[in-house]
Amino acid sequence: MNPILVEAMRGGICESAHRGAIAVVDADGAVIASLGDIERPVFPRSAVKVLQALPLVASGAADQLGLSDEELAVACASHNGEPAHTAVVARMLARAGLDADALECGAHWPYREPIQRQMAAAGVEPSALHNNCSGKHAGFLCLACRLAGGLDLRRYARGYVGAEHPVMQSVTAALQAATGFDLATTARGTDGCSIPTYAIPLRHLAHAFARVGTGTGLAPDHAAAARRLRTAVARHPFMVGGTGRFDTRVMERLGERVFCKVGAEGVFCAAFPERGFGVAIKVDDGNNARAAEVAMAAAIEAWVSVDDGEAELLRSLSDVTLSNWNGLEVGALRASDELRRLAG
Amino acid sequence: MNPILVEAMRGGICESAHRGAIAVVDADGAVIASLGDIERPVFPRSAVKVLQALPLVASGAADQLGLSDEELAVACASHNGEPAHTAVVARMLARAGLDADALECGAHWPYREPIQRQMAAAGVEPSALHNNCSGKHAGFLCLACRLAGGLDLRRYARGYVGAEHPVMQSVTAALQAATGFDLATTARGTDGCSIPTYAIPLRHLAHAFARVGTGTGLAPDHAAAARRLRTAVARHPFMVGGTGRFDTRVMERLGERVFCKVGAEGVFCAAFPERGFGVAIKVDDGNNARAAEVAMAAAIEAWVSVDDGEAELLRSLSDVTLSNWNGLEVGALRASDELRRLAG
Repeated sequence: MNPILVEAMRGGICESAHRGAIAVVDADGAVIASLGDIERPVFPRSAVKVLQALPLVASGAADQLGLSDEELAVACASHNGEPAHTAVVARMLARAGLDADALECGAHWPYREPIQRQMAAAGVEPSALHNNCSGKHAGFLCLACRLAGGLDLRRYARGYVGAEHPVMQSVTAALQAATGFDLATTARGTDGCSIPTYAIPLRHLAHAFARVGTGTGLAPDHAAAARRLRTAVARHPFMVGGTGRFDTRVMERLGERVFCKVGAEGVFCAAFPERGFGVAIKVDDGNNARAAEVAMAAAIEAWVSVDDGEAELLRSLSDVTLSNWNGLEVGALRASDELRRLAG
Repeated sequence: MNPILVEAMRGGICESAHRGAIAVVDADGAVIASLGDIERPVFPRSAVKVLQALPLVASGAADQLGLSDEELAVACASHNGEPAHTAVVARMLARAGLDADALECGAHWPYREPIQRQMAAAGVEPSALHNNCSGKHAGFLCLACRLAGGLDLRRYARGYVGAEHPVMQSVTAALQAATGFDLATTARGTDGCSIPTYAIPLRHLAHAFARVGTGTGLAPDHAAAARRLRTAVARHPFMVGGTGRFDTRVMERLGERVFCKVGAEGVFCAAFPERGFGVAIKVDDGNNARAAEVAMAAAIEAWVSVDDGEAELLRSLSDVTLSNWNGLEVGALRASDELRRLAG
């Protein structure tokens, strides 16, 4: 039974609570701190996009196509589908000689409701570019462009989301190398954007992020790719999320001291390169916005050196005031005492 | 520690799980079945709107103003803010000589995203009429109209959301009488629409719904009011939710055999009048859409007599196929074995 990580308070009592597990691991694989079951395999979903983007750089595709930092950042993103995101994804596809038709992620309305309404007001329907995973998929297609060699790219890339496609084989190999977990024998599901997702214990996910943050334990080409992706995201944190998003707000403020990435179903991973630590969180009930984020903010507070202004931002994310439709303060989200003690 | 009520499956494993408690109680207060802690007080939020609407009818306000069944139904609603909802709420306010300016619930964009986009395309901003609670608040204002007697209604009604206002005192007294729980000494919070919400154990909430479903244990005027409200909702189930909503879909199909009402933070209450049972569910983590609803569907399957077509609808709500953006089946939501055994 995992402990409570986050509580939603109202009227002086705990109205709802989120249980989960957290692993903090160094680059040698030593567990620095943990709560709950960190050995149970969980689907990391979009939290591992940076690991899935390693072959894009390591293969030479990024150099061959001249990908910019913005484009590398959006390859690691679960973005809001704001105009800046879709423009960068479209540009990235164009570098490979492709367009949105090649994306196999499916279309959905942008995550951010005001953007939905702006589009509706302009009579625009969503395309695959608006899918929060479109940058990751554009990265897969750029990798396909490299792997295709002299073959017809459109034909070669077709079905790239399939587990047996060379693109996905390369992505899966990177995930396995970084996590050190045998993906051939673990549960495999299908992600929201149709690529496979593999169940991996939090301890291994945290270890992978410690490796991404330090380069230790990665092959040299993957270590260099990890550094380049982290730098790209630190320079363009808007690209990985967007307006109002946790990842964007934290990395805009903390720069390269934190690389963090939310995933669906309450998963959150991060690298704290200065400390050499990786962090992986899974909220049992799958809640991201108010549970995994609050827990991650508390973890950053505990293990990353920050100044007073940065501390204030982080506290506003780990101890969140809840207001109602009239703007009245009605409650709060807060990291549990148990999580605070772990971090302390 | 409450048991798992609902599981989210992916790739053959349980990806996320929702714990919670459920009480099934008869009109005499006997516990027919339960799982988890049903004595811990929880905020029932919008699940008790039918109890909060009892004084609207019992006071004579509904008769005095000639409220229709549609209007009584929307007084019990957490509606989608669709045009049919806002029109009925506006008509209800007009009967009391008021308009949307009198509503103290605050404004928000309609719950249903396609309606948001339709409004944005038409250049329309949301008003308090679109607030999912606007019907309940219109009911409070109609009650105020009755209680005001010869006083100036606008002045009298001002601040009706306050716990000490005669309107809210009347509403709270009805809640206390139906639940048999001392609200003066329990935790009090502020709801999303600014009225007080009182923490009440699930056992008492389920008992209140058994009373609403049967009339047993209510004062004669409240028993008559409960019957009238249930009938109104059964005739106009669209009014309590709207397109695609669980409450609407279930009551459109099952009519007076089920009166169910979702509340925020994973609360769900229902009356099964034929059986004389009341049901109250609280999901620990506050998840409604995929946890409280799945659990309630399983409860209805267990305790309400249905034909094959109705059973199929209910099974589609308690054993839900999850598809991704490409329409691929990626997982399922399902009632836990423990919940199924309880119900069996």
